[in-house]
Amino acid sequence: MNAFGTLLRVAIFGESHGACVGVTLDGVPAGIPIEVNDFLSDLERRKGGMQKGTTPRKEDDMPSLMSGVFNGFTTGAPLTILFGNNNTRSEDYEKQRAIPRPGHADVVAHEKFAGFEDFRGSGHFSARLTVGLVAAGVIAKKILKDIDVKAYITEVGGETDIEKGLQKAIDAKDSVGGIIECIATNIPMGWGEPFWDNMESVLAHAMFAIPAVKGVEFGSGFQAAKMFGSEHNDAIVNAAGKTITNHAGGIVGGISNGNDIVFRIAVKPTSSTPKQQQSYNTETNEMETFSIKGRHDLCVALRAPVIVEAMTALVLADFKLLRKAYV
Amino acid sequence: MNAFGTLLRVAIFGESHGACVGVTLDGVPAGIPIEVNDFLSDLERRKGGMQKGTTPRKEDDMPSLMSGVFNGFTTGAPLTILFGNNNTRSEDYEKQRAIPRPGHADVVAHEKFAGFEDFRGSGHFSARLTVGLVAAGVIAKKILKDIDVKAYITEVGGETDIEKGLQKAIDAKDSVGGIIECIATNIPMGWGEPFWDNMESVLAHAMFAIPAVKGVEFGSGFQAAKMFGSEHNDAIVNAAGKTITNHAGGIVGGISNGNDIVFRIAVKPTSSTPKQQQSYNTETNEMETFSIKGRHDLCVALRAPVIVEAMTALVLADFKLLRKAYV
Amino acid sequence: MNAFGTLLRVAIFGESHGACVGVTLDGVPAGIPIEVNDFLSDLERRKGGMQKGTTPRKEDDMPSLMSGVFNGFTTGAPLTILFGNNNTRSEDYEKQRAIPRPGHADVVAHEKFAGFEDFRGSGHFSARLTVGLVAAGVIAKKILKDIDVKAYITEVGGETDIEKGLQKAIDAKDSVGGIIECIATNIPMGWGEPFWDNMESVLAHAMFAIPAVKGVEFGSGFQAAKMFGSEHNDAIVNAAGKTITNHAGGIVGGISNGNDIVFRIAVKPTSSTPKQQQSYNTETNEMETFSIKGRHDLCVALRAPVIVEAMTALVLADFKLLRKAYV
Amino acid sequence: MNAFGTLLRVAIFGESHGACVGVTLDGVPAGIPIEVNDFLSDLERRKGGMQKGTTPRKEDDMPSLMSGVFNGFTTGAPLTILFGNNNTRSEDYEKQRAIPRPGHADVVAHEKFAGFEDFRGSGHFSARLTVGLVAAGVIAKKILKDIDVKAYITEVGGETDIEKGLQKAIDAKDSVGGIIECIATNIPMGWGEPFWDNMESVLAHAMFAIPAVKGVEFGSGFQAAKMFGSEHNDAIVNAAGKTITNHAGGIVGGISNGNDIVFRIAVKPTSSTPKQQQSYNTETNEMETFSIKGRHDLCVALRAPVIVEAMTALVLADFKLLRKAYV
Repeated sequence: MNAFGTLLRVAIFGESHGACVGVTLDGVPAGIPIEVNDFLSDLERRKGGMQKGTTPRKEDDMPSLMSGVFNGFTTGAPLTILFGNNNTRSEDYEKQRAIPRPGHADVVAHEKFAGFEDFRGSGHFSARLTVGLVAAGVIAKKILKDIDVKAYITEVGGETDIEKGLQKAIDAKDSVGGIIECIATNIPMGWGEPFWDNMESVLAHAMFAIPAVKGVEFGSGFQAAKMFGSEHNDAIVNAAGKTITNHAGGIVGGISNGNDIVFRIAVKPTSSTPKQQQSYNTETNEMETFSIKGRHDLCVALRAPVIVEAMTALVLADFKLLRKAYV
Repeated sequence: MNAFGTLLRVAIFGESHGACVGVTLDGVPAGIPIEVNDFLSDLERRKGGMQKGTTPRKEDDMPSLMSGVFNGFTTGAPLTILFGNNNTRSEDYEKQRAIPRPGHADVVAHEKFAGFEDFRGSGHFSARLTVGLVAAGVIAKKILKDIDVKAYITEVGGETDIEKGLQKAIDAKDSVGGIIECIATNIPMGWGEPFWDNMESVLAHAMFAIPAVKGVEFGSGFQAAKMFGSEHNDAIVNAAGKTITNHAGGIVGGISNGNDIVFRIAVKPTSSTPKQQQSYNTETNEMETFSIKGRHDLCVALRAPVIVEAMTALVLADFKLLRKAYV
Repeated sequence: MNAFGTLLRVAIFGESHGACVGVTLDGVPAGIPIEVNDFLSDLERRKGGMQKGTTPRKEDDMPSLMSGVFNGFTTGAPLTILFGNNNTRSEDYEKQRAIPRPGHADVVAHEKFAGFEDFRGSGHFSARLTVGLVAAGVIAKKILKDIDVKAYITEVGGETDIEKGLQKAIDAKDSVGGIIECIATNIPMGWGEPFWDNMESVLAHAMFAIPAVKGVEFGSGFQAAKMFGSEHNDAIVNAAGKTITNHAGGIVGGISNGNDIVFRIAVKPTSSTPKQQQSYNTETNEMETFSIKGRHDLCVALRAPVIVEAMTALVLADFKLLRKAYV
Repeated sequence: MNAFGTLLRVAIFGESHGACVGVTLDGVPAGIPIEVNDFLSDLERRKGGMQKGTTPRKEDDMPSLMSGVFNGFTTGAPLTILFGNNNTRSEDYEKQRAIPRPGHADVVAHEKFAGFEDFRGSGHFSARLTVGLVAAGVIAKKILKDIDVKAYITEVGGETDIEKGLQKAIDAKDSVGGIIECIATNIPMGWGEPFWDNMESVLAHAMFAIPAVKGVEFGSGFQAAKMFGSEHNDAIVNAAGKTITNHAGGIVGGISNGNDIVFRIAVKPTSSTPKQQQSYNTETNEMETFSIKGRHDLCVALRAPVIVEAMTALVLADFKLLRKAYV
C-alpha cells in the first residue's frame, strides 16, 4: 500500500519523468498556518547541485498546494502537494533499458509490473518521490511544535571527516555511502504502542522506505550486542524517567521514555556509480560491461538528512495524535 | 494497533502472569494440515532451561487450538491459539514495583497506561508474548512451502565463538547481547511493494517488534556505508536476476530480487542482569541500588532465532499472498 | 479482515460448535472498571429461550476475561474474552451437509474455503459469534459514558404489535423477520470523518456485519426519497446545531450534528424455518425437499437489539477516541 | 481516513472551489490499457446540465492522468487523476456563511474543523468530489472485465415514472429525492469475507459515502422483514449455487452466491431546494428565513447512478483481487 500512518496518513504518487510527483497528507489538524514559503528551506536542503558530491540536476521543486489549505491555514481535509517535473532527460534512460542497472530497481520493477513500469529514471522507484515527503515533513514538524527533529551526516565513505570521504569518491571516480544520525528532543514519555506499532518498528519502517537505506539502529544499536547488561541499562534518575546514559536511544519497550530519541541509518553508495559495471543484457542474453550516463550524486546520503527528518516528523506527529486520543 | 499484516494478519494478546498469552492469525488459507505436534519443535527451540545462559523457568508451552482448525486442517477462519500461564511467581515482581527496572518497560508502561498496567513480569510487554508468534510462525512456514527461513546466532557478547561469549557473561555475573542472522531462500523475484510496504520496511517493522532488538541491517548493512558503489553493486548474471555477490541481501528497490534474503539483528543484553543496578524509587523519591530477583536469561538472543524465523515467515507469507493477488 | 475499527479495534474468532467463540478488543483506554457481572445483563438480553419465538438452546454465556484486565480495571492492553461452547449437538448438522440450507452460508462457505470450513451449526458464520460482540459492546458503552445507545424491535412479521407478529409465525409454522430501531443520544457535534469513514458508512458497515441484516436507513431513510427538500431539511435553531425535526437522523455530511442519531435495520426471517424447503443435494445431484432440524429462533430479530447496541457503541466509542485526538 | 479498500485502495482530495479535485487509486494491476477517452462517457453521465432537473453548471471534467499510466497502460504504481475547477462562483457561497444551510455539512464542518474549513460550495464535502470516484470507477470496471455493473433510477419524488416525479418538483419549485437500483452480474461465488468485511458491509460502506444517500438495502431489503422464512429463502437449484428466486440479492453470509448482486439506495432530496427555508444566523443569533442562490440540481439522484456504479465497481474489483490471493 502506498500509504503510511494511522491518524496522520501520508501517501505518495508520481514518477521521476512523468507529469509530476506528489504527496497527499490526510488527518492533518485544521488551523495550522501554512504557505509556500514554509517549504522552501527544507526543500532546498534536499536539492542537488548545492554541494560537492550531489547531482547538478536542478529542479525547481516549487510546491503547488492543491487541496487542504484555505486562506493560509490547513482545513483538516486531505492536503495534496504537487511538484512538476520540468527538467528531465528521459533519453538517458531509454537507451539503457535492456541492461538492468545493478543496485537499482530495474530488474525487480520489470518482473513485478510485467514490463509495464515507467522505467524512465527509475519511475515510481525514483528518489525524486522523496520531494513530496520533505514537503509533508514540513507540515508534520508544525504539528510537533516544540519537538525538535534534527538529522545530519556523521560519516561518508567510511570517514567521519566528510570532506575527506567525498574526496575519496572523487579520487576513485566512484560513489560512496554514508551514515546519518537523527535526534528528536522533547518527546514526552508514553508515545508508541506496545508490540507491533512500537516506536522503533514504525520509525524503522519509515526509514527503510527511504531509497538506499540498508540499516537502522537505535541508541547503542549494533554496539549493544557487545555490551554487558549492566553497561547498557540506563539508570533512571527521576520520576519523569530521565536517565543518566541513553543507550536505549530514548525508547524502552517500544515506547518513548522521555529522553532524546536517537537513531542512525546506513545509506549504501549511490547505485549509479560513474565506474564501469557488468550486467545482463536481456536483448542479447549476454553479460555486458557498461557505464551509467546521466547526472547522479556521488553520495546520496548527503541529500538524505532532511528526508530522514521529514519521515521522523511524520511518524512522531502520528504518535502525538494517537497519544492525544488517550490522555 | 496490536495487529500486523495486510492479508495474513497476526494479533497477540495476554500477559506474562495473567491467565494466558495468545495469538490470532487471520487470513490463513483454508486446507493447510495442522496439528499440535507441528508446533512442538519450534516451541521447544524458544523454551528456556534447555541450554546454558537461558532461564530455568520451564513453561509447558502446549498450544491450545481454539478456532480456525477443523478435522486437522485450517478452515480459513481466524485461527486462535492459547498458551496457559502455569508457572508464575508473581510475588517476585510485585515487591519491586516502586523501582522501575532499567531497560524494561516498567517506567513507560506506568506512564502510558496511567498505572493500570499489569506490571507482573512485564505484563503485556513480556517476551512471553513471543510464544504465540512462534506458533503463528509455524503456520506461516507451512504457507511458504518450499521457501526456507533459517535464523541463527552469529555472535554473543561480542564473540563469534558463542560458548566463549556466554562464559564471559557467567564469569562477569552479567547479561550479554548478541547478533542473529536470518536467511530466506527460494523467494521469487517481485515480492514487496514499492515505497511504504517495501520488503525491508515490513521485515524491519516485524523485527523491531521482537523485544530487545535494537538494530536491523540487510545484506552488507552498516558496512555498505563504507563501500564504494562499484564494490557494493551486485552484478546481474541472468534474466532471473541472479547476482554474483549479494551485498543487497536479496532486496533492491524494496522488492525481492530472486537471491537469498539476508539480514541481521542486534539484540541488546538482557535488561534483567544479575548485577546490582541503580534506579529511582517512586515511593521514597530517591535513587536506590537494587538487584533483580527471579529467573532470567543471561542472553535473550539465544532464544530469539526461532522468533526471528517466525516473524520473517509471517511477513513473507503475507507478501506471498499479496503477490498472488496480482499474477 | 476479521477486525474492525481505527483506534478501538474489535476482532472475533471461533465457531459455533468448536471450543469457543471469542473477541479481542484492542485500543481500550486503561482504567475502566470491569468485572464479569458487568456483562451479564446484556448477555442475558441476547440469550435464547427467554421469550416466545427464540430458540430453547441455553448457553451459559459466561465470559472469561483472558487478558487486558487487571485488579478490576482495563489495562490498555488487548482485551480478550472467551465463551466456551458447552451445549452443542453437532450431529444435527453433520447429517445435513450434502444439502446446503437456503438462506444460510453453507453453499458459499463451501466454495470460499474449498470444503475445509467447519460446517457444524454454520461454524464461523454462526450468529453465536455475536456473543463476543455483545461483550465488547459492554466495554464500548463504558467508554461512551453518558452517551446512551438504545435499540428495540419496532416490527415483527410486518406487525408493529410484536406479539401479533410472533403469533403469525407460530400459526404459520414459519419464521419471520423484523425491524429494529436504534437511537443514540448525547453525541456531540463533530464525530465522524468526511467521506469514506463518515458516520453513516461506518455504522452501516457494522450493522451489515450482524447476521441476517438486509437493510439500513438513517433518519427518514427510504422515506426521504419520497419527500421534498423543504420537507426533509431540518431547520437549525441554535448555534449548537439543534434542529426542529430530525429527518437526517442526527448525521449531515456524514458527521454527527448534535441531535439524536437514529437508524433502523431490516432483519430477514430466520433462514432455519420449520417449514419444508427445497435445495440441491450435492451428493445425489438432485433437488430435494427437506426440513431443518435443531433448535432455532422463529424470529432472530428478537435477540438482535442488544447486538445492534453493541455494534453501535463500538463504532461510537471509536469515533469518540478519534475526535479526542483532534480537539 | 480519506481512503478506502484493502488491495485496490481509493483516496480522494480537493474542494469544490479550490484548485482541483482528485483521486488516487493504488493497487491497480499493471498492464490495463487506459486513455483519456475511456473516462469520457461515464464522466458525461455524471455531468449536470444534460437533462431536466440537473444544474446548468457545466464543468469541463477533463481528467488529467498525473501518474501511474505510461505509454497507454497502467504501470502498477499509484494512479492519480486531477480535475481542475474552472467554473466556480465562490461569491454565491461566501455571502451566506453566517447561515448554515439545512441538510448541508456547513454546521458540522464548522465545528469539526474549528472554522478553518473551506466553506465555498461545501468545500471538501461537495458532491464535486465524486467526479474523481467516477474516474476511478472506470478503471475498476476494466479490472472487473466481463462483470457488468449497472445502476439506474427507479423512482423520483415517489414516482416510478421519472418524468412525472421531476415535473412534481418543477411544479412545486422544490427539490426531490429518488431511489437507485444497482445490479452486478457475473460475480463468481465466494467473494467477500466472513463477518466484518462481508460484501454487504463493504458495499454499504461505499454507498453511504456518496453524498445524500440515507438508505441501503440488499435483495428484498426492508421488505424481507415482512416476509416468512419460507418465502424469503432462495431455493438452490444447482451445484453452482444458482437460486430460483433472488431475495438475498446475491449475497448470503456476506459472501457472493453466484447470482446477481442487487441492491437499492435511497437518495434524499437535494438540500439546496429553491424554496425558502429557516436557519440560525450565527452572526445575529436569530432564526432567519432565507433562500439558497446558485445553480443546483432539483434531484441529485439523477446524476448518481454512474457514481453508484463506480463505487460498486471499486468494491468488487477489490474483492476480485482479494479472492485471487486465495485461489
